[in-house]
Parts: sequence; structure tokens; C-alpha cells
Amino acid sequence: MTGWGDIAHLGHVEMLTDRFDESLDFFTRVYGLKLSGSDGRSAYLRAWDDYEFCTLKLTSADVTGVGHVAYRAASPEALERRVAAIEASGYDVIGWVDGDQSHGRAFRFADPFGHVFEIYYDPVWYEAQQEAEKAALKNTASAYTGAAPRRIDHLNLLADDVTEFRRFMETCLGSRVTEMIRLDNGRIGGCWFTVNNKSYDLACTEEHGKGHGRLHHVTYAADQREDVLRAADIFLQNGVHIETGPHKHAIQGTFFLYVWEPAGNRVEIANSGARLILAPDWQPVVWTEAERRKGQAWGLKTIETFHTHGTPPVEE
Amino acid sequence: MTGWGDIAHLGHVEMLTDRFDESLDFFTRVYGLKLSGSDGRSAYLRAWDDYEFCTLKLTSADVTGVGHVAYRAASPEALERRVAAIEASGYDVIGWVDGDQSHGRAFRFADPFGHVFEIYYDPVWYEAQQEAEKAALKNTASAYTGAAPRRIDHLNLLADDVTEFRRFMETCLGSRVTEMIRLDNGRIGGCWFTVNNKSYDLACTEEHGKGHGRLHHVTYAADQREDVLRAADIFLQNGVHIETGPHKHAIQGTFFLYVWEPAGNRVEIANSGARLILAPDWQPVVWTEAERRKGQAWGLKTIETFHTHGTPPVEE
Amino acid sequence: MTGWGDIAHLGHVEMLTDRFDESLDFFTRVYGLKLSGSDGRSAYLRAWDDYEFCTLKLTSADVTGVGHVAYRAASPEALERRVAAIEASGYDVIGWVDGDQSHGRAFRFADPFGHVFEIYYDPVWYEAQQEAEKAALKNTASAYTGAAPRRIDHLNLLADDVTEFRRFMETCLGSRVTEMIRLDNGRIGGCWFTVNNKSYDLACTEEHGKGHGRLHHVTYAADQREDVLRAADIFLQNGVHIETGPHKHAIQGTFFLYVWEPAGNRVEIANSGARLILAPDWQPVVWTEAERRKGQAWGLKTIETFHTHGTPPVEE
Amino acid sequence: MTGWGDIAHLGHVEMLTDRFDESLDFFTRVYGLKLSGSDGRSAYLRAWDDYEFCTLKLTSADVTGVGHVAYRAASPEALERRVAAIEASGYDVIGWVDGDQSHGRAFRFADPFGHVFEIYYDPVWYEAQQEAEKAALKNTASAYTGAAPRRIDHLNLLADDVTEFRRFMETCLGSRVTEMIRLDNGRIGGCWFTVNNKSYDLACTEEHGKGHGRLHHVTYAADQREDVLRAADIFLQNGVHIETGPHKHAIQGTFFLYVWEPAGNRVEIANSGARLILAPDWQPVVWTEAERRKGQAWGLKTIETFHTHGTPPVEE
Repeated sequence: MTGWGDIAHLGHVEMLTDRFDESLDFFTRVYGLKLSGSDGRSAYLRAWDDYEFCTLKLTSADVTGVGHVAYRAASPEALERRVAAIEASGYDVIGWVDGDQSHGRAFRFADPFGHVFEIYYDPVWYEAQQEAEKAALKNTASAYTGAAPRRIDHLNLLADDVTEFRRFMETCLGSRVTEMIRLDNGRIGGCWFTVNNKSYDLACTEEHGKGHGRLHHVTYAADQREDVLRAADIFLQNGVHIETGPHKHAIQGTFFLYVWEPAGNRVEIANSGARLILAPDWQPVVWTEAERRKGQAWGLKTIETFHTHGTPPVEE
Repeated sequence: MTGWGDIAHLGHVEMLTDRFDESLDFFTRVYGLKLSGSDGRSAYLRAWDDYEFCTLKLTSADVTGVGHVAYRAASPEALERRVAAIEASGYDVIGWVDGDQSHGRAFRFADPFGHVFEIYYDPVWYEAQQEAEKAALKNTASAYTGAAPRRIDHLNLLADDVTEFRRFMETCLGSRVTEMIRLDNGRIGGCWFTVNNKSYDLACTEEHGKGHGRLHHVTYAADQREDVLRAADIFLQNGVHIETGPHKHAIQGTFFLYVWEPAGNRVEIANSGARLILAPDWQPVVWTEAERRKGQAWGLKTIETFHTHGTPPVEE
Repeated sequence: MTGWGDIAHLGHVEMLTDRFDESLDFFTRVYGLKLSGSDGRSAYLRAWDDYEFCTLKLTSADVTGVGHVAYRAASPEALERRVAAIEASGYDVIGWVDGDQSHGRAFRFADPFGHVFEIYYDPVWYEAQQEAEKAALKNTASAYTGAAPRRIDHLNLLADDVTEFRRFMETCLGSRVTEMIRLDNGRIGGCWFTVNNKSYDLACTEEHGKGHGRLHHVTYAADQREDVLRAADIFLQNGVHIETGPHKHAIQGTFFLYVWEPAGNRVEIANSGARLILAPDWQPVVWTEAERRKGQAWGLKTIETFHTHGTPPVEE
Repeated sequence: MTGWGDIAHLGHVEMLTDRFDESLDFFTRVYGLKLSGSDGRSAYLRAWDDYEFCTLKLTSADVTGVGHVAYRAASPEALERRVAAIEASGYDVIGWVDGDQSHGRAFRFADPFGHVFEIYYDPVWYEAQQEAEKAALKNTASAYTGAAPRRIDHLNLLADDVTEFRRFMETCLGSRVTEMIRLDNGRIGGCWFTVNNKSYDLACTEEHGKGHGRLHHVTYAADQREDVLRAADIFLQNGVHIETGPHKHAIQGTFFLYVWEPAGNRVEIANSGARLILAPDWQPVVWTEAERRKGQAWGLKTIETFHTHGTPPVEE
């Protein structure tokens, strides 16, 4: 029993910031997410067509990085099956926690690299409170504004041992690998996972520093490549640090743009065109080090910080 | 047991043409599909990033319209489960047929409206035979050329009773409804189905004429809206009949362009942006007649032939 | 002496509105122009990359339509040459008027169809007053926001006799004709004029109603066709009446979208791609009635109101 | 008398290649230009909407680089005025030469840095010879195919002394400067010129090597940024060396993509959006070295070869 199908999709990411007000201003005014609600320590954010109340939980903290990663189960029964599988797996179990404004109770556990995961089934569906927020088209979740990203897409975590992280994802979430990097020394340098027809919803790349439980980036999907180009102008105009892009990844073919929000967490806005993984027997695409050295799809050399910067930062 | 998950995706459509040479010229030179192979009566075509050998089987015939519609099962076991469900359903069973150049044996059955379906598990995966056809990026199936559509997306069939067709799709394929039209008289005027995270892979709209087993259109997905705009110029330049578009559908939000290939079958090229249906408990969006009267998303009135033209044509 | 070169470009249009507050809200919040200043009766607006303080002067009035049309001369000497030519022409001369917030003194005159024109040389150049308005790139005029149109592009006026209007434009402004419609009865149905390398900065089409001095529309240029598509979503979301488009004109090849601002004046946002008229001896492209009947470039039939609606409205 | 207005536009560039067959294959099959004609040593090429028979004359030679640069005069009288101005200027005069397949007699002269220029008035206008080449829309010059660039846009030449080159352009062609780089040592590092409303038709940057009369690149304009992105995929698929891009220049704001054709000449495809220089009294935008160090508009560092590679190559 592989667990494939038990998890419906990536639900939300809790991002930590030690500059809460500036980060919130960035995500709402510049990056284009919408504020659904807030409590003492956290703001609940979503993209304009996310059906859930929250896909990014921005939490004030002493450090930056990722608080937890949440996946939604396909049904209450599927949630129970995953809990049983995880409890039998030997991975660290934190156990059931109460929900928050955005969803009901969730089951928490951790990978060996310091990242906390949770699975839940009962989300709060987003409902527009104000007339101006109501979508003109009833098959979209809320009003479309500017170059705003459409929905949460994926995140990227760092781990010392990607092979072990792969086993974690397959065991606990029933995820599949769609693409991967095999280093010359035989190790897996990076791995792209999915629980559904998206080409990936989580990527894991090798931790080069001394960090533990670190975040590489969180990504929202834009409808068109032109939205990504326009976002670049918006970031430029607002003094946001553009790290690299727009350009096209060789791996997964994503058209990407990476920036750092005010607290230093890396955030991406990306477009994948019409690409989906529909084959039920898809075999992972394997990239070699030599192929990686060619740079991104159109030849851009990967910028150095992309290999070194993660949150929270570490002493080198 | 609903059958959800047993079917992986829409596999291919057999389109009938009484002008084979002209239709083949249109699909390869103008529309941008690639020729994988041919036998005495049929040409096997695919889009540049379809992983299967064939997603459009163009077959010479005395009439136009759809020969059969094929879905790929998620596994050999899932195929057996679907066969058992269909045999128990009371719908017309044609039974197992040999495959062709593009896939192994398939199980055939029919809806009550004259459309033949098949389910198969063993496809022939596309492999580039010539150097020029090999993809520069190994995670794409073949060389990208021009404004060519990327992969098969969906088809639309006509039926006298959409409610009954809905029962057929749910029973035989485990499909779900994502959007639908409810007429003032209570009937379902149209229904959009999916077996996976795509927002739809098959639509059924009410047959207004006296036709039986008729096709409304077949659609391939383009990566960007700009590809659809460029396709309009290409169709114009090549004297292809553009029926309507480019414009944005209210239902499903698809950015569309409809043309008639030389034999009269309606063909679409479309872009859906980043829209996916990820919620496992998605409730169908229901459109009223009054809402439909507003026209498409940006106000374009639906052209009359869109309600009357299907293939094969019928005497009015 | 033709006068070619004496006029540099279309400067601004004064648009009249009997719903000033709603029109101003539309142009700033929805259409994306920026407010440079205001006085008792008028708001001075510009697109983000217009170098002048004002390209749309929105004026409160009892009627809708166009107050006046202003062109900037290429030099003080060129202005004098135009004034002499106009005074010698026999067309109605209004004479020198003081400027306003946006430019110095101007010479006013009128065509025989009730439209007031002016020529000026001294504009107020736009200077950002607030930090947030300053362009990140010093070769652009101000901050880029959302899908905002980039610069004023052209306007369209109605006249009973387009041939006579053509003589007016050639005599007074040294304009050239780049495209035109010749009706089966020999009359000119429409004429597209330019004073520089733009393919047109003013169009004149035949007045079908009983109107005098009426406006057909005012247009701003968007950088990309995607901006026009996005604008359609923004108009939809804000309840703006979309009259027709997005689609591509056969004449001039412009990718267009027409809406009515709250007072009923027709406003366009459009993209012309890389098209420019560079040939110094360009001969007008002439379209026949039969060609016009084919509709727009991709076959869209021209909507009826496009032939009848102008501002101010007239009793039919 | 400045000469402004005497020159209508950049006409064509003669590019030298020591790999004629491969260069011709690149420009026609991959880059998307059309072959108008050929003679013993040269192929005459144009973009799909260039009105002239030839905008790139590709000539077989022992070296690479630029053969000559041709501008079209605004009238026969303007041509004579320019000839008189050039003869009086002291710059090297080569004199009148016969035309070729693409234009009548031309007046040749040279800048002090080894680049040959010519001015002509009588071009051969392109006329489609084959039905398939005729434009579906009569206001475009020929059939639109694929991602083909629309018209010639500009070229970039290298010179030891940009200040002196500026004097040459102002004296001989009546060109104006729209943007420039002022180095910390006071020298002009680069200068962008125009004879019309385009923001530039020729750029000159400082020669860093020992070269003389060298070419930096030739550029054609694409209608949309999406065409530039698509071109990147086409170049990738055809094994063309992509040097840098797609990205947005800070200077002039052009969205660019640079490749090397088989003989090593640098070729660009670019989009400028709706940007035009319409102000008759435009003052040059001046960029400092510090501003240049920030890289391109969205932060991309300029690739080293961009500063060193020109054609013909030189020994370092």
C-alpha cells in the first residue's frame, strides 16, 4: 500500500519572520496575497484563487524559516490511514493538535531534518466578506487584482540527506518523485515530489551549510509568464531584493522569479504553462551533475546565493 | 465505491474525416500536431509534450465526428475494476478489442447517445526517432515548434439527456462534475467532468438537433494565452474558418479559440492558466440560464453556430 | 510645403463628463491613470510613462464627449508656421488661449464638424512629487503599477464628411493618412492619420447619427497584449461595461478592448505590437466595404453600438 | 541646421560571415527571416513585416562582422542635403555606389572607427511572389510565421571614442541621443541614437579590445515579450548559443535575448513594449558607472563576453 491518493494537495506553509510588519506589508501590498484574518502572532494569507482561508500563515518569531508544512488529506478515512502509516513508520510523531482559524485538528510529525509537517482534513473554505472581494465569475474564489499569484504551488526544504527525505515523503505522504538530481558521487542532490497531477508540490535539496530544518523557498503560481515578468517590475519598483530570474528552470521547466521578503525568506512566483504529470506510471527524470553545470534552461548560471541562502541563516 | 482514481486521464480521441488529406494537412502543418505513424485508414497524431504515441487518431470515413473516446486506467487492477463496474451497469458493452499502433487491448462500451468509449492501460510511449525531434530538455517529450499546442486537454460530446450522460460518466469512469448549467426547466444543459486535477477533461452539452453520437469539439492545451492569440494569426493566414474567439469562457474560465478543420469537425486551442481543481470535496459550480445569457466572461455573445454545429452534421 | 514634421505628437484630450466623480474614480482606480492635479472643474490625468503632466483632462460638464484635442508642436517656430497655415486656411480660428496647469498658451481652431483643436509648444513635464511615484528606472516617467496603460495613443472623432475632415488634418496639422476605408459609393468611410512614426494618432469615421462634434473614443497604449487581456478581467471585476474585445482589428492590426466609462464616453486600451510606419513614402492602405464586412481580423463581427454610440449621445 | 528629419530610418545591415551556408540556415530556418533573393555572394533577407526587399544582407567573406550600415533618406532632396553635409564634414567619403537587388544608388562614407555607412532613397519594396507569402491582412507586408521577428530594429557598433562617434552620427545623419553612459573618468561609455520616434536605431559602445570597425550586434523587433521567450526555446532546441537573456535592459528598457549565429556574429531579438520617444525636446538619460554596476533592470549581472566579444574577433 503506497498511500498514493490519500493526500489531496499541499495546504499551507507557516512562515516565520522576525520583521512581522514589513513581511506582512510585502506579502499583501507587493506580492499580492490577501489577508483573511489574524490573531495575536499570525496573519492568515491566501492567493486570490486559493479556495482555503489560508495558504500562508505568517508568524512572528525570533527566527526566520518555516514553522510547519501542512497537507490536506483526501478524506477523513484517508487521514486516518496516513496517521496509522506515520505512527508505524518510526518517524517522530508530535501528535494531534488543535486547529486554528483556518482548519480543524491536525496530526503533526517531523522529518529527521527538523521540519514539522501536519495533515488535516477540515479546512475553512474562504468566503468573501465584502462586496468588492466577491469574484465576478462564480468559479473563482475571489476578486482578481493586479499581478497577484493565483494559488499556492510548492515549497522547497533543505535536508542533509535527500535520499532519507525521499523515504520520509513516500512513507508518510505517499508522494511520488517526478524529477531528481543524481550527483556524481551517487547521492541524490535534489528531489521533486507530488501527491497529485501537479508536477511537484514540494522539493528537497541538499543542505550545504550547517543548518537544520531550513527553508529554501515558498512559491505561488501565476497564470501566465507575463505575470511573472510584470511581477519583476513590481518588485523592482518596490525595492524588493530580486535574487534571480525571470528565467526558465531546466528541471521541471518552471518559469521562475525569486525574491527575498523583508525578513530574508526566499519567495518565488512561477508559471508552469500547461505542464501536468498525468501518466500513472511516470518514471522520474534524472539529471546528472554535468547537465546541471549547463545552468538553467536558457543557459543562465545558477546564482551562488541560491546554493547557500536558506532560512533561518546559519554561520558559515 | 465511486471509482475515483481508477482512471488516470483522457488518452485519445478518434476523429472521423471525409477529407482525410486536407484534415491531415491541417492538423500537422497548421494546427501543429506531430505525426507519429499511420496505417491504411488512420494517422496517429500527438502534441509536442504528450507522452503517448497518439492522442488524436485521425481516421478516414464517410462521415465526420468522433470514432471513439479513450481513457487510460491508473493500473491494470484499476482497469479490471472499471470493466467489472461497467459490465454490472447495464450500459452497452462492446467488449475487449485489440489495440493498434498506439496502445494494447482496450475495453469498449457505449453511452446511450451513440458515443463509443474505451479504457486501456498499455500505451505506446512516444520515443523520438529523429535527432531533430528529440527534446532539448529531457523532461519534455519532444521538440517544441512554433505555437504548437502542448497536450490533449478535453473533448465535448452532445447528448439528448445530459443528466443521463452524467450518470454514465460517474458509473463507468468514476468522473466528477466540476461545473454545470441548470436550465430554467430543471434539466442540466451542460456538464463538465474530470477524473483528475484538471478542471475538466470531457464536457457534455445538450443536443439541440436530431443528431446521435455527435461531437461538439476536441481541444488541445496551449502553454500561454499568447499562444492562442498567435494561433489565431496562423489560422487566419492559412484560410482556416475561425468560428469564435479568442475570448474567455465564463464557465471554467478557459481562454478559447474555435476553428473548423477542413472536414468540418470543430477544434479548439485553449489555455487555462494555473487553474486546477485540488479540493477533494469540490462542489459543482452551477450556472443559471440568466447567467448564461450574459455571454462569455468578457461579454462576447455566444455565436449561433456554437449551439447548432456538430459532427456529423444533421438535417435541421 | 506640407507641414510634415511641424507637429510632434498628440498631446492631450479634454473629455467631458456629467458624472465627474464616477468618471474620475474609473480613470484612476480602474483604468489606471494617475492624477497629476486638479482645479475647480477639471482633473489632470496621465499614464505612467507619459512625459507630460496631463494627457487626459477630465472636465465636469452638462454633456459628455470631447472638449478639445491638443497636439504638441515640434518647436516654437513650427508652432508659428502652423498658426500661419491655419489662419490662411479659412477654417474657423478661435485664437490664442491661456494655458492651464499642464501647458502654456495654445492656439485654438475648429474643424467644420464641431471639434475644437489646439496646438501648443510649452508643456509642463511630469515630475514625481512623492518617493513612491518615482520610477525605479530613470528612463521611465513614473512608477509602474498594475496593468496601467503606458501612454496616450490616439482618439477617434466622428464627422459628416471624412474627406473634408482629411483636408482639415492635412492643412492644419500636416498629418498623413496611413489607412482608410473607401465605401462603395466612393465616399471615405474612415481615415487614420499620423504626424509621426506611430501608425495613427487620430482616426475619423463617418457620423451615422445627427450628432455634431462628437467623440467616438480615446485610447491609451498598453505594453503587451497580455495587459489588454488582464485589463478585461479588471473591468469585469469592477462592473465596467465592456462593449467589445479583446480582439484584433483588421485595420491597423491593433489588439483592442473597448469599454464605456461611467458617463458613457468610450475608452479603449490597446496594443500595436512592434508596428510603426517608417517609410517616408508610405501609401495609404485602402479597405473596401466588402473587406469590412468580413469583420475584424479574426472574424469577430463589429458590434452594432460601435457604429451608433458616440458622445454626447443624440436622439435617433 | 541639424539634419533632423532628413533620415527616415535604419534600412539594412550587411553582415559578413565565413560560414555562409550555416549562417543562412540559421537566419531563415531558426531566427525566422525570409529570403527575398540572392546573388553570387549575398543573400537578401527581411523580417515578415519589413516593407523593404532587404533589411539584412548576408555576405560571404573571409571575416565576420559588418560590411556596411544603410539608412534610408526621407526624400531625394533630403538625401542631397545629407550628402552635402557629409562632404563638408571632413569624414571619409567613399562616394556614390551602384545599388543592388534591394535599392538604387547609395552614397557611402565611413566613421573614423572603420564602419562603412551608406544613405539611399530608392528601395525595392517587397512584393510577395507566392500565394502563401501574401499577407492575410493587407496592412502587413507578408505572411506571419511562428515567432519570427517583425522588423529590423537597431544595431550596435564598437568604437574607440564614443564621443567622436556621437559627433559623426549627429553630423552625418542628424541623429539624436536618447540615452548614454557617462563613465567616472568623464568619457562616454555608450550612446543610443535615433533618427525618428524609435527610442534607438543604433547604439555605440566603447571598444575594449584592439578591434577596428567591429560589430557588437544586430537586432530585430518582436511584437510581444512572449515572442522573445518562445524564441529562447527555439534557439535552445536548435542548439544555438544563447549568450544572455531573456531579461530587461535598464538602459532603454528593452526586453532582450542575445545569441550567436554560426559564424559568431551576435544577434538579438527584442521587444520594447509601447515605448517611443515623442518629445521633440527629449534630453538624454544619463547613466553612471555606479548605476551600471547594478546590472540589468531586474538585477542580472551583465555577462563577461558581452563586454569582450565582437566581430570580427580580435587577438586579446
